[in-house]
Amino acid sequence: MSGVYSALVHYPIRERDGRTATASVTNIDVHDIARSSHTFGLAGFFVVSPIDAQRALVVRILEHWRSGAGLRRMPHRSEALATCLASESIEEACAVITQREGRAPMVLATAARAPQGRSVTAFAEVSRLLAERGEVPALILFGTGHGLVDQVLIEADVLVEPIRGVAGYNHLSVRAAAAITFDRLLGQAAVTGPHD
Amino acid sequence: MSGVYSALVHYPIRERDGRTATASVTNIDVHDIARSSHTFGLAGFFVVSPIDAQRALVVRILEHWRSGAGLRRMPHRSEALATCLASESIEEACAVITQREGRAPMVLATAARAPQGRSVTAFAEVSRLLAERGEVPALILFGTGHGLVDQVLIEADVLVEPIRGVAGYNHLSVRAAAAITFDRLLGQAAVTGPHD
Repeated sequence: MSGVYSALVHYPIRERDGRTATASVTNIDVHDIARSSHTFGLAGFFVVSPIDAQRALVVRILEHWRSGAGLRRMPHRSEALATCLASESIEEACAVITQREGRAPMVLATAARAPQGRSVTAFAEVSRLLAERGEVPALILFGTGHGLVDQVLIEADVLVEPIRGVAGYNHLSVRAAAAITFDRLLGQAAVTGPHD
Repeated sequence: MSGVYSALVHYPIRERDGRTATASVTNIDVHDIARSSHTFGLAGFFVVSPIDAQRALVVRILEHWRSGAGLRRMPHRSEALATCLASESIEEACAVITQREGRAPMVLATAARAPQGRSVTAFAEVSRLLAERGEVPALILFGTGHGLVDQVLIEADVLVEPIRGVAGYNHLSVRAAAAITFDRLLGQAAVTGPHD
């Protein structure tokens, strides 16, 4: 079966006021989501930023853990970051996956809220889609800031339903949302039982 | 029904070499786990540290979001942090819950690995225990650093089974582990279907 990949997108994302923006890369996002991705068997994790200096920062973080003092101190973190890549755009990440897997990925977007008129797919159904994808790779997109812009959500092959809590409050960090999404879609329960 | 609480414990935790240690408070842990706690309807989130200056730091972080510039900029974060408390020890957190709820909490510990001889309880079973707890409050403990010391794991009423990924790799951040734990134990799926 082909690989499932994740991407943390820093552009194009929404600002608080709804405008399109570019977010800065946060060091801890890179570690956290790389570790979560690797724990749930993802084939790779892209950190997407169009800013050269930001991608250079990602490469420095990766080098620290892969070959520097970080490797000696925490070899398991090095293992998780081995599948992490800096990428210029969502399109470039798709191109890398296409080249590696021989087919373009099914693109799954995530959001705390769906844009008007765009239907969402329930976690249990997305989990089935992934289990039955065969030779089609997949790419799960997460937005930083206030989330992916509507255009990305609308153009994705699948928009995963928002993670609903129990209290009507839904402001998870992207690190928490990614962890829950991987667990629901690719964890052991995704194989043996329904999630919602 | 009584409340479920969480606590992020900075002492007593394990160092890499197995010795007991005290970890520093990490700003982002406070936000992340407060937001995850509030999303899944927990009644409160304790940040446990025996060091006065560290608890003072937590109070400053809380004040920033509750009343300072943070409140104006991100009111939803303020809402999540409203239920966050700095606490000197696990015992003190238990005492606060006991005073508030009228009964001592059932203590649930979490770990990436169970100590020898200590049985673990599956997520589905813990979820049932919580759903049927009635007037008994509950406190879910998370360890920073390399996890809670064995004594805490052994003395807890329940040791929740480790979160297993799919690749034999299990080095989730405490932020990711807390998010997945809340989702599995208290999310919508915990009510309607088995998780493992």
